[in-house]
Amino acid sequence: MKKLEGGLENVPGYRFSAVEAGIRYENRLDYTLIAADDFCNAAGMFTRNRIISPAVRLSRQRIENPIKAILVNSTNANTCTGDEGYSNALSLTADIAANLSVPEESVIMSSTGIIGHQLPREKMMSFHEKLVSELSREKGSQVPRAIMTTDTYPKSCSVSFDTAMGEYVIAGTAKGSGMIAPDMATMLSYAITDAPVKRDSLVKIFRSVTEETLNSVTIDGDMSTNDTAILLSPAGNSFLEKKSDLESFNEALYSVMYSLSEMLVDDAEGGTKVVRIDIKNAANSEDAKRAARSIAESVLVKTAFFGNDPNWGRIAMAAGYSGAEIDEKKLSIYFDDLPLYLTGKPVDFENNDINKVMKQNRFTVTVDFGLGSSHAHMLTSDLTYEYVKINAEYTT
Amino acid sequence: MKKLEGGLENVPGYRFSAVEAGIRYENRLDYTLIAADDFCNAAGMFTRNRIISPAVRLSRQRIENPIKAILVNSTNANTCTGDEGYSNALSLTADIAANLSVPEESVIMSSTGIIGHQLPREKMMSFHEKLVSELSREKGSQVPRAIMTTDTYPKSCSVSFDTAMGEYVIAGTAKGSGMIAPDMATMLSYAITDAPVKRDSLVKIFRSVTEETLNSVTIDGDMSTNDTAILLSPAGNSFLEKKSDLESFNEALYSVMYSLSEMLVDDAEGGTKVVRIDIKNAANSEDAKRAARSIAESVLVKTAFFGNDPNWGRIAMAAGYSGAEIDEKKLSIYFDDLPLYLTGKPVDFENNDINKVMKQNRFTVTVDFGLGSSHAHMLTSDLTYEYVKINAEYTT
Repeated sequence: MKKLEGGLENVPGYRFSAVEAGIRYENRLDYTLIAADDFCNAAGMFTRNRIISPAVRLSRQRIENPIKAILVNSTNANTCTGDEGYSNALSLTADIAANLSVPEESVIMSSTGIIGHQLPREKMMSFHEKLVSELSREKGSQVPRAIMTTDTYPKSCSVSFDTAMGEYVIAGTAKGSGMIAPDMATMLSYAITDAPVKRDSLVKIFRSVTEETLNSVTIDGDMSTNDTAILLSPAGNSFLEKKSDLESFNEALYSVMYSLSEMLVDDAEGGTKVVRIDIKNAANSEDAKRAARSIAESVLVKTAFFGNDPNWGRIAMAAGYSGAEIDEKKLSIYFDDLPLYLTGKPVDFENNDINKVMKQNRFTVTVDFGLGSSHAHMLTSDLTYEYVKINAEYTT
Repeated sequence: MKKLEGGLENVPGYRFSAVEAGIRYENRLDYTLIAADDFCNAAGMFTRNRIISPAVRLSRQRIENPIKAILVNSTNANTCTGDEGYSNALSLTADIAANLSVPEESVIMSSTGIIGHQLPREKMMSFHEKLVSELSREKGSQVPRAIMTTDTYPKSCSVSFDTAMGEYVIAGTAKGSGMIAPDMATMLSYAITDAPVKRDSLVKIFRSVTEETLNSVTIDGDMSTNDTAILLSPAGNSFLEKKSDLESFNEALYSVMYSLSEMLVDDAEGGTKVVRIDIKNAANSEDAKRAARSIAESVLVKTAFFGNDPNWGRIAMAAGYSGAEIDEKKLSIYFDDLPLYLTGKPVDFENNDINKVMKQNRFTVTVDFGLGSSHAHMLTSDLTYEYVKINAEYTT
């Protein structure tokens, strides 16, 4: 596997376009199209929120179809917009499909932005001809910017990997600077590859990879109404089927999705640090995940990170209320390699040593339960003044 | 029922004392004793955190015994302190029991403060004679201050109520300015009454009242290792048993515990507002509670309150991911009496009207699910710069 410069434009077989449609603001890329040359198998992961955008509803319904295109708008989430909102999503995808001369069921859609406003359908449609006529491989570099809301920089990456059938590329992009930005619902992520993978394998691999990457990221614990992650792979006649090839594919996809996850946390609203919470030796994997999430979402833990405070007591507390089986006497807590609490006993540490760890903008907190052999991790950010400012000062 | 001036000192049959024992800081009341003249029935609610203070472990073991006294220290939580911590709690309660000439199993204990430090046992014991010799009813007014950690003011209240057996008093005190203050684990609350209630009724009533008061409060969603609420009632020969008398008792206790809950949120770390989240017409009571908690704990909702932003979209989003059954088309959201979202449709509102609501330091957000008839509420605070400051700047 090899990391490449650049993103979506590195993958043969896809074309892209992006326009300033003025959906909510002028002079900003806000409407983008990802089109595959051939029909694709698609795997999708969607928000578990019960209030969902019509775009999520439509994409969920179509994800098992052969997919030709993904249409994405930013600045308006098309959420809490009722039947009119759903009908708008239907017309927009139907019109793009007509322009592409493909079945409307082969086009899926995502929306991200403000909640409770109807999309300006006619205005958006007036850009469809341009979106289709300007499709090119090079414009893949514009997609990451066109899907942004409060992100401070566009996020994408790509890798190549070898298989018995030759070399392939996977590229991905993501947006979302709070898991929900201020009223700007959504984490969106799209990955594309020229590696042909059968749909059942594709879905299985994508699910397990997103579980350990995008689903192991928390910024504020709020789950958006629009969260969507999609992976496209060409649906040809021959597929990667050898175990070792699928493993290479899995590893390459993991690398892309993990990098995107790190970028999301790095760009967390107001965040100054990326902290990896590593749970080791929990009684079972459910417990490991639960504890990782509980610690990563504790606002007391996150404010302590901001304050460079190695507050292992708050970490023990958050592990304790996670519901995971825990035995104080077997519990150990490390900041990077420095133990602060060892099998039930506080450790005297040098201020110099811990300051070195905490002042980094990336470090790892390891919580060893000493009970079993299950592991899990979460990436989280610190909770800062700036986070409060960004989220308090936005006005509906 | 009548609200009274003052707190614990209003209840006949109890005496109190408080000293500056220098447990962690000098010149600060940090060690206090509540002693009942007669043996009491006790009801207790304890943290569900799996990492618990030895004080919680000991109190849980003894709560069904006839109780004579409650010993409380602040500034040190005696948590993550292993066998030595438990043995310290045992010796301290045994020594107080000896000084009071009562069985050691009739004394319970709470600790609140920093995690991971052993209690200075000998130093504390040297104050036991004084704690016992200075017991008086008047000193009830010192208990609320002696149990404080980062609280900015002592919290207590009392009411009297009539029964067929005469007039009785219930008084209570509480502390905790985050549900966990910075590393200062704990919400503690003690209520005492001269009304004699059989233990099974006492436990049942206390459980249902705390569920709707102390357990319906959230400041940061973090559940402490030391949370404890205790209610004492004299275990005499005759008891309140008439249904109407027990209802009066219930109502009086609710009033005391609800007032204390409001004070806790009012004194929330850095908080500037007390917001009541009212869930109406949820499909069932589990759903109602879940939705109330999800909204009350959403950091995006709480930062919006701070920013005077009537962000109903974030409220819908938090209701949506709570797991409660929800139908967007039946959902309505009000800020006080002002509807912002009505059966699935955003409402145009006047800025003046909403500003009037949001600038109050107390208001109610009502979320009507339109699905069933179950209700629930939570009290929450806003999330402010000051909260981040308090919790980031504390240094372990």
